[in-house]
Amino acid sequence: MKINCDMGESFGNWKIGHDSEVMPYIDMANIACGMHASDPTVMLNTVRLAKQHGVTIGAHPGYADLQGFGRRNMALSSDELTALFIYQIGALKLICASEGVPLSYVKPHGALYNTMMKDDELFETLLKAMKSAAPELPLVVMAVPNHQQYQATAEKYGITLWFEAFVDRAYGEDGRLVPRSVPGSAYADLDTIGAQAQSLIEHQQVTTLSGTVIPVRADTLCIHGDGPQALPTAKLLDSLIHQGQAVCK
Amino acid sequence: MKINCDMGESFGNWKIGHDSEVMPYIDMANIACGMHASDPTVMLNTVRLAKQHGVTIGAHPGYADLQGFGRRNMALSSDELTALFIYQIGALKLICASEGVPLSYVKPHGALYNTMMKDDELFETLLKAMKSAAPELPLVVMAVPNHQQYQATAEKYGITLWFEAFVDRAYGEDGRLVPRSVPGSAYADLDTIGAQAQSLIEHQQVTTLSGTVIPVRADTLCIHGDGPQALPTAKLLDSLIHQGQAVCK
Amino acid sequence: MKINCDMGESFGNWKIGHDSEVMPYIDMANIACGMHASDPTVMLNTVRLAKQHGVTIGAHPGYADLQGFGRRNMALSSDELTALFIYQIGALKLICASEGVPLSYVKPHGALYNTMMKDDELFETLLKAMKSAAPELPLVVMAVPNHQQYQATAEKYGITLWFEAFVDRAYGEDGRLVPRSVPGSAYADLDTIGAQAQSLIEHQQVTTLSGTVIPVRADTLCIHGDGPQALPTAKLLDSLIHQGQAVCK
Amino acid sequence: MKINCDMGESFGNWKIGHDSEVMPYIDMANIACGMHASDPTVMLNTVRLAKQHGVTIGAHPGYADLQGFGRRNMALSSDELTALFIYQIGALKLICASEGVPLSYVKPHGALYNTMMKDDELFETLLKAMKSAAPELPLVVMAVPNHQQYQATAEKYGITLWFEAFVDRAYGEDGRLVPRSVPGSAYADLDTIGAQAQSLIEHQQVTTLSGTVIPVRADTLCIHGDGPQALPTAKLLDSLIHQGQAVCK
Repeated sequence: MKINCDMGESFGNWKIGHDSEVMPYIDMANIACGMHASDPTVMLNTVRLAKQHGVTIGAHPGYADLQGFGRRNMALSSDELTALFIYQIGALKLICASEGVPLSYVKPHGALYNTMMKDDELFETLLKAMKSAAPELPLVVMAVPNHQQYQATAEKYGITLWFEAFVDRAYGEDGRLVPRSVPGSAYADLDTIGAQAQSLIEHQQVTTLSGTVIPVRADTLCIHGDGPQALPTAKLLDSLIHQGQAVCK
Repeated sequence: MKINCDMGESFGNWKIGHDSEVMPYIDMANIACGMHASDPTVMLNTVRLAKQHGVTIGAHPGYADLQGFGRRNMALSSDELTALFIYQIGALKLICASEGVPLSYVKPHGALYNTMMKDDELFETLLKAMKSAAPELPLVVMAVPNHQQYQATAEKYGITLWFEAFVDRAYGEDGRLVPRSVPGSAYADLDTIGAQAQSLIEHQQVTTLSGTVIPVRADTLCIHGDGPQALPTAKLLDSLIHQGQAVCK
Repeated sequence: MKINCDMGESFGNWKIGHDSEVMPYIDMANIACGMHASDPTVMLNTVRLAKQHGVTIGAHPGYADLQGFGRRNMALSSDELTALFIYQIGALKLICASEGVPLSYVKPHGALYNTMMKDDELFETLLKAMKSAAPELPLVVMAVPNHQQYQATAEKYGITLWFEAFVDRAYGEDGRLVPRSVPGSAYADLDTIGAQAQSLIEHQQVTTLSGTVIPVRADTLCIHGDGPQALPTAKLLDSLIHQGQAVCK
Repeated sequence: MKINCDMGESFGNWKIGHDSEVMPYIDMANIACGMHASDPTVMLNTVRLAKQHGVTIGAHPGYADLQGFGRRNMALSSDELTALFIYQIGALKLICASEGVPLSYVKPHGALYNTMMKDDELFETLLKAMKSAAPELPLVVMAVPNHQQYQATAEKYGITLWFEAFVDRAYGEDGRLVPRSVPGSAYADLDTIGAQAQSLIEHQQVTTLSGTVIPVRADTLCIHGDGPQALPTAKLLDSLIHQGQAVCK
């Protein structure tokens, strides 16, 4: 089980996240690629930071919408999306190369990620783009109940999927995240976060907001790097996963 | 002797240049990388067009200034410039890879090109960036009288230089282009363009605006793709270079 | 009956439209405001051109999406849209003031215009914004069969509506434009354009693509300034409306 | 003596400054206009915050360079700068109008401010722009020893100048700020800040870094809103100026 975290989301003079504090505890850094967040300088510095801590680097491409932080849906054609997606992966890949480290995976960001999980056509557009541009890189998607269906689609394009689960968000009966607008959908309490993490790691399951237990088979757990609990959550997962210790007793 | 031309300088709904008409006649397409011109979709389409005509593709990175088309100087730090430069090369490189064609060289654009030819520190910044990110790619610079000096600097970083000359612009006594603001500095007449081309190809020299003959040793001749004479100039150079015919009889 | 045309849609080095040729024939210039097209310099120059020809100036605000030319839908909150809308109107208004001419109306652009005609909530958001920022300015909307409904909504906010019709596009049975993807939806033939114009001017009606005659009461007719027929259409409408001449002799 | 502070420098998801904490203590809010910082939504919210605290609002226009926060010089033509400057002032002015509050002055930002103080031609370009677009608004410039010269130039265009001084930066013998790169050029200690403020308020003078006392006649004192001492400095100046209390007892 790997810990992944969005990184490099600052932009110019504006800082977001706690990259230097969190980096030592994670396995995978999803680095923004300059379209919804980050800029070339931030990307280069974040790659250097990840390299210093031996953290695996992934591209975190999003819609070209700085003001909206890539969280507003945009109606792009398949061709537009393909080109935008490859562009961002390529930019980060060469920045990695300039530091002598590999780019190892791709995880879409924000509205692009959410739409990918709902819209089969868009999901296939991304898979086709990866097949043509970076067939060796895994794509990170959400660990959902019907993951076999995503798996089957990805196999058509020869792309490996890595499934991720969330430790600080409530799941619904459908195995998807409860929207942030619903009270109780986001966990700030470390005990709750730790319990969900342990359940995901040891039993491949979570307890939904309404109390049902559902299976969630994840390869990696996601930390929200810009939240107030980013650092303690990172430390918690680090101790759970890397050091095999019990949590928060 | 190769013919190079700036390509892919359209942006979204805005078109510039005569890419599809000119592409059949040139050897090297300098493709803009989305910062001063172009966008990912335009880049992908231009790579496809170049591939179709067997044209060698180069990255044409510039300052991040769409409104100014990369022609306004910007005061960037070395780190900012390094990251911005690698970012653009990487983005185009992976778009090329997605179409199964290589990225083969780099030619800076506009104010970045001009400053590179005047400011040794900035020139070295670009060379360092290429050494770290793409040491196998040649860098296109202007064929100037003191080209040995540029050559020596490039060799420190292991970067090959390709020198380019201009067929439709007047040269000054210093072997540099006469500024566009000077009357007579730009040639629109095909006979004059043909004569300068022939002189560059056969005798490695040009006649300056004041009538002196100076040596200019070029590997490639540049066509301005957005000018009104782009297509006839491309055909002229094509017949001169690729077909070995005399010109404008 | 007034002739309106989108103007000032160039951006930096990129030119679109035939502003200087078309301006002498029109009554109302819808000037882009720098978010989907135009930039401050283009805006200032276009205001000067309109002033020179005594043309009434309107703001033509759109989504902040240069690459997509404001034609891609974006999911903005009401607050985001309100601020973005007022921002653009204000920018153009002061540029007008600097040239001593008034800003006289507002016409939304592209996806924002289309969504305004379909989404009552967004339409009210724009009306509220105008009430707070520029209650004296009319808003241009499409002349549709249920125009009383739009009128009633606008009156709630004290905003005057100007209704516009299109002379070079086919209408459907529903009184809306037939999508561009449908064959025959756009008219290039001047006789057809002239006939539709005359029908709109003299009889307040159009013949739909399927042959029915429907009423369309318009205050102004729109010319698409970037089309190949922009100039002849402008001259045609000018002779029809301003000079009262018969058309298509 | 008025207290001015840069406000509204956040952008989209990125926050800078302590606007809501500092606003109660200041007299003048210099609000960024969306080109180097801020966006329409941030501008609207900041205008509402200023209105709530009865704070006078000024436009804080800068170069169009979000990544560089308007701190990198850009080589704009006079026409480009004129249009860019008016555009930003107009955008904020109408946002103010939509909230029923006036826009009351203009203070250029960052590299534009610095260049204005060094380059007479650029200073006159800004004055001409203000004369044409907003002759009733004062322009904030730095209180320098040769302020009569600036005053005389401004009078040619009928523009009122407001002079500002800095309480947390060291002055050189030339009456200009010592560059930030020089050790001791920025004051973090509140006693030092308070002493310089008191000297400026009561004696219209400051002690330079080398110990000389020089005259500085200021109408307003500037607080740097994004610094770590922004809030205590605001409270300190508030007590000094608005409440007439002695400082640092």
